[in-house]
Amino acid sequence: MTVQKHLGEQSVRFEKPPTILSAASIVGPKEGKGPLASYFDLILDDILWGEDTWEKAETKLLKEAIQQAVSNAKINMEQIQYILAGDLLDQLIATTFAMRELKRPFLGLYGACSTMAESMALGAMMIDGGYADYIVGATSSHHSSAEKQFRSPLQLGTQRPLTASWTVTGSGAVVLSKKGTGPYITYATIGKVVDFGIKDPMNMGASMVPAAVDTMIQHFIDTNRKPEDYDLIVTGDLGSVGKQLVIEMANEQGYDLSKNYTDCGVEIFDADTQDTHAGGSGCACAGVTFTGYILKEMQKETFKKVLFIPTGALLSPLSTQQGESIPGIAHAVVIESSLE
Amino acid sequence: MTVQKHLGEQSVRFEKPPTILSAASIVGPKEGKGPLASYFDLILDDILWGEDTWEKAETKLLKEAIQQAVSNAKINMEQIQYILAGDLLDQLIATTFAMRELKRPFLGLYGACSTMAESMALGAMMIDGGYADYIVGATSSHHSSAEKQFRSPLQLGTQRPLTASWTVTGSGAVVLSKKGTGPYITYATIGKVVDFGIKDPMNMGASMVPAAVDTMIQHFIDTNRKPEDYDLIVTGDLGSVGKQLVIEMANEQGYDLSKNYTDCGVEIFDADTQDTHAGGSGCACAGVTFTGYILKEMQKETFKKVLFIPTGALLSPLSTQQGESIPGIAHAVVIESSLE
Repeated sequence: MTVQKHLGEQSVRFEKPPTILSAASIVGPKEGKGPLASYFDLILDDILWGEDTWEKAETKLLKEAIQQAVSNAKINMEQIQYILAGDLLDQLIATTFAMRELKRPFLGLYGACSTMAESMALGAMMIDGGYADYIVGATSSHHSSAEKQFRSPLQLGTQRPLTASWTVTGSGAVVLSKKGTGPYITYATIGKVVDFGIKDPMNMGASMVPAAVDTMIQHFIDTNRKPEDYDLIVTGDLGSVGKQLVIEMANEQGYDLSKNYTDCGVEIFDADTQDTHAGGSGCACAGVTFTGYILKEMQKETFKKVLFIPTGALLSPLSTQQGESIPGIAHAVVIESSLE
Repeated sequence: MTVQKHLGEQSVRFEKPPTILSAASIVGPKEGKGPLASYFDLILDDILWGEDTWEKAETKLLKEAIQQAVSNAKINMEQIQYILAGDLLDQLIATTFAMRELKRPFLGLYGACSTMAESMALGAMMIDGGYADYIVGATSSHHSSAEKQFRSPLQLGTQRPLTASWTVTGSGAVVLSKKGTGPYITYATIGKVVDFGIKDPMNMGASMVPAAVDTMIQHFIDTNRKPEDYDLIVTGDLGSVGKQLVIEMANEQGYDLSKNYTDCGVEIFDADTQDTHAGGSGCACAGVTFTGYILKEMQKETFKKVLFIPTGALLSPLSTQQGESIPGIAHAVVIESSLE
């Protein structure tokens, strides 16, 4: 019997679900003092990691996370047929300069902080579609390079409102494989750009909520699943302000997220002691929370079915200067320990 | 018999090659005075197209080109299952703000000026893989928004060296379909990031040449094809300086490109009368030359087999300020009028 791969409006179901063969997570010093510290492969004690700029440090983060993931998979870099990756910096320079050194076929992605899911969804399609045996999906962000680019130079010491999030320094990478014993990527739901008119770049959590809820509910409709079918539903980097709004918006549409939903931005820092205000953000927030915490807890069978929905705020400093609101996007992937 | 979809090192062969069901090209006033003017669907007489910023004009270019392509395909926007697109602006704002209005599932791509091929290659994999029936691939660039971002504000009147290229104002879009009578996308070759150490952002043609030649020759090796198997081999936006270097570099490796090779950047402007120096560049250079000139000449059977290799320079103003060289990338897609 042929499986219907295109499902409903925005989703795909994988015929032979690719395995996440391995993963790696590298984080900065602040993330290494947070509640998920024990899950990360490497914690830096220097945010520059021996480089002379934050951007070059971010390139190193991404490159080393990919190399670590490939090493963890016990294969060689030469066996990786494609790398799908992206970051937040203008023209993806963290990623493209890492690719210069890794010398593998490369497809550059930009989904802001939804990039981890974009790379996993497209990578899974390329593997299940028969175009590759091994693919790397990866993303990175760096607190200092992101603050400098999107908001104010750190040296100004600008006060941050309580709705502001803290860009995670780190990189997460996965190796996807045609063969393996799981965890498997079983479904993906590709998001639309959604804009409810929020203009405050210091409240990005709220600006991404409508996209997160839109993709999540479309996923339930397309797959005929419900929130309770998952052990964990986790958005990318909405933080505490956004998380509460997601619960309320989903509830208004008849979906109860009170039992099994959280947000990577809430999990990665201890808001009470780490002064991170609304929580973590950045591509690496979902990237390292997934490749560190979630995947390792899946190995322990704490979670067997996870709906992972990284969220992206599609602003640039220029669009804000031109008076534009902040559109959001969210892509979802389903990861399951075993196949039904 | 099962077709081997992954081919050689970097290439894929489509089992049921998707059809380019329709295309559209919109260009600015200068492109509309060039040698390809008669091929474009729409020529603007105002580079702002009624908008108040260049960036918003670029958003409109991309949105309208996609709408025109969908209209040309005689289908509705609601039938488009995914849009794969990107542009040159920081955080892809030309594209993401267009997506806000088009309201279709969106995958953001960044391949600099190689984006047209990246969208067509990934879109073809998604269709041939069974994940969609209709996909849009698209890209845009705008002379004024690109000059402002990458080089100097136009108001400064900075003199341009003869190696400089002229960023094309325009947008090209294609609708890819599972069913159709061609032209078909039959192969794709995904490029690696290649860097020969060129640091001059006023000579981007030369910086992209090594990537173009690398992808082109890998394509010949992977597919066991030769230059003479194609009616036309066309790179993206190397311009006259880069074109000559490609011919020389390929010749050194035993490939004769003297008969059937050109570059979109050479074709789109009349260098003698339009003061464009080395030629055209920008995502739209390959985008509109392909969707305008090349596809329409394929309909007339001037070309039956085309190897299309858009090229991207992976610099940012910041990487240049930090003393970095300019890495390049090139992705190739093969378009054929009929199937063998």
